[in-house]
Amino acid sequence: MMISKNQVKYIQSLGQKKSRDAENKFVAEGPKIVNELLEAKNCPGLQVFALKEWIQLNPAAAGPVELIEVSEDELKKISQLVTPNQVLAVAEKIKWDDEVVIKGTISLALDAIRDPGNIGTIIRVADWFGVKNIFCSNDCADVYNPKVVQAAMGSITRVRVEYVELNSWLTKNSNEVSTYAAVLNGRDITKMERLNEGVIVIGNESKGINEEILKHVNVHVTVPGKGKAESLNAAVATGIILSHLI
Amino acid sequence: MMISKNQVKYIQSLGQKKSRDAENKFVAEGPKIVNELLEAKNCPGLQVFALKEWIQLNPAAAGPVELIEVSEDELKKISQLVTPNQVLAVAEKIKWDDEVVIKGTISLALDAIRDPGNIGTIIRVADWFGVKNIFCSNDCADVYNPKVVQAAMGSITRVRVEYVELNSWLTKNSNEVSTYAAVLNGRDITKMERLNEGVIVIGNESKGINEEILKHVNVHVTVPGKGKAESLNAAVATGIILSHLI
Repeated sequence: MMISKNQVKYIQSLGQKKSRDAENKFVAEGPKIVNELLEAKNCPGLQVFALKEWIQLNPAAAGPVELIEVSEDELKKISQLVTPNQVLAVAEKIKWDDEVVIKGTISLALDAIRDPGNIGTIIRVADWFGVKNIFCSNDCADVYNPKVVQAAMGSITRVRVEYVELNSWLTKNSNEVSTYAAVLNGRDITKMERLNEGVIVIGNESKGINEEILKHVNVHVTVPGKGKAESLNAAVATGIILSHLI
Repeated sequence: MMISKNQVKYIQSLGQKKSRDAENKFVAEGPKIVNELLEAKNCPGLQVFALKEWIQLNPAAAGPVELIEVSEDELKKISQLVTPNQVLAVAEKIKWDDEVVIKGTISLALDAIRDPGNIGTIIRVADWFGVKNIFCSNDCADVYNPKVVQAAMGSITRVRVEYVELNSWLTKNSNEVSTYAAVLNGRDITKMERLNEGVIVIGNESKGINEEILKHVNVHVTVPGKGKAESLNAAVATGIILSHLI
């Protein structure tokens, strides 16, 4: 089967946030992520474009989803990757039916993290440690940006990412649960007790956390270092903090 | 002053490992990194190509280094970045005079980490925790790859990166110091005592650590997770492990 010029154009358009928002869709690529989307219960209505070799190895995929066989040339046209990887899925944005709960759990809040790879890696780290909710300031990279989706792997189906006006969100929620932020001169994270609930705020690595936002934070924490590096990568800092506090 | 076509060609050629090795040079970009190179004692012979605005803010740079003012168009031609950032330096590869010591210190060994951003971030994490030496298998990304240099920031001047045949290197050195590797079913990293010396082996995140290499490892460690993510990003795993063991 051939894919039409209009289909190619449509899929390419989903590289842009505007189109993703208008269509409520996103693109994911490669066997690993597509298989996780196929198994996820909150990701219905998949359209899968795959090479013959992938289809032969994944006969079950032919079930409830729309499966379109494509040639390597066709895959190249619709792919956002430098090296297309067998299969591409057009998916509806993840559905989260239940209400967001922050009491009794640990959540992350991200302030102005613009690098898509960083956001994706943070989502994966959150998933590793069982963190269910991430609240992003509106100037963070879009969770459905293809680079975020690739870096997060299947974790976007398990970790809920919400975009909020972070300042007012914290104003409202810092009365409900304790809030923590990674700064340069806070309490030594390696000497703190483990938490059962709270919101951990992670800032942009070059600018740190916005002053206004810091005002809503109860506890300042620090990853102690011995060396001379000025800062840690935001995803690395998130991983270290979660590994000590969860 | 204008830069010649030959200079442009020469600088562009340093995007390739072959040319970097032949010339013993590399390229670094942006005020932050270039300033760190200017201050570093092991990075002599810098050639700095900068916009007027950078030169005005950094009068001291005009000292012992070769400083060439360029226009925005010229900077664009020699830059490897999508958005060139004021200044670009051509530097000699970092000089390390003293002998490598692994007794009494903590070192990292990287197995087949091919993503330049990951290698760069690992170098920065190592620097944060005061790790002085990283031993890379020969199939790791080149430390002087422009993307590694950008991600590592100034840390490449403080952390020594050596390329080795990792299998025989470990065979030789695992008698001298204890070796640790991050695997899926090892000892809980959060419950271990802090180390004073040792080599921590970090593997490729999709393939894990090579079987042959694992044979030389004394202690298997694990970052315990609660969620369903299959793996942690290699740089994040390195950060977590170092934060618990150092």
